[in-house]
Amino acid sequence: MPAKLRSLNDAFVHELRDILGAEKQVVKALRMTSRRASSEELRTALAEHLDQTEGQIGRIERAFQSIGETVRAKSCAAMTGILEEGVEALRKADTDILDAMLIGISQKVEHYEIAAYGTLCSWAKELGHEEAGMLLHQNLDEEKQADERLVQIAGRLNQRVA
Amino acid sequence: MPAKLRSLNDAFVHELRDILGAEKQVVKALRMTSRRASSEELRTALAEHLDQTEGQIGRIERAFQSIGETVRAKSCAAMTGILEEGVEALRKADTDILDAMLIGISQKVEHYEIAAYGTLCSWAKELGHEEAGMLLHQNLDEEKQADERLVQIAGRLNQRVA
Repeated sequence: MPAKLRSLNDAFVHELRDILGAEKQVVKALRMTSRRASSEELRTALAEHLDQTEGQIGRIERAFQSIGETVRAKSCAAMTGILEEGVEALRKADTDILDAMLIGISQKVEHYEIAAYGTLCSWAKELGHEEAGMLLHQNLDEEKQADERLVQIAGRLNQRVA
Repeated sequence: MPAKLRSLNDAFVHELRDILGAEKQVVKALRMTSRRASSEELRTALAEHLDQTEGQIGRIERAFQSIGETVRAKSCAAMTGILEEGVEALRKADTDILDAMLIGISQKVEHYEIAAYGTLCSWAKELGHEEAGMLLHQNLDEEKQADERLVQIAGRLNQRVA
């Protein structure tokens, strides 16, 4: 990767490395936190999203290969920040509101990824990276569905907590 | 603010301080970067979003007041991470792709805020914080519109860059 980003393709590879790093950080975080949810519905959703995230990492790796680039992740400062705040909030939260907090943090994670995949899909289209675009679009759709599922669970949980 | 978050209201105030900090960081970042866009359409959109963000800060302050809480911002680690990455990417980017990068970063900012306001609106509803909920919903709608506008601009710009 050149230090300079000279073309839209350079930017695409840069962003692909960022989201690969981000997804790997999410896997670690979900492994630590998903079992802390007290609602069974939320615990199941987070565990399923952990499996899904591992599949997404596989797709990102195939996206790299499809454009002849070495698979490489870069540490994602944005995801680091989101997860740091999340860990701090969970540490402070009483059991009663842990699930509501977990959902709020997870939605920040999903939305970061929705933005990143949205940009990548748009760039893949412009660059003619068809296979990569298709793979990343699948990830984008899964993140949107995961976010929507969290909204539904939140609606049911908040009524119990408030 | 207690060190512990014991209730959904504590979580609400915690999150309100986070988004106030985040929006203040966005104002600073937009002041530094919005003029770097080469497309006039993008420059206008970013400048208008800067004005809009200042209005959003006012609404957050009124939301604090409406629930009898002192207006206080907390530094938002997630936004710090998003903006750090953005500044680094802009530093590396050639002029030709600066606009595409600016849009990508701005969408990450918007999506962080969409997630945060979404959670706050849902909690405000559960807590019966009607006025705060209404104010935060206005911010949420503006962020969604800002994101949509960026998608439209990106579509037009990427065709020129690729």
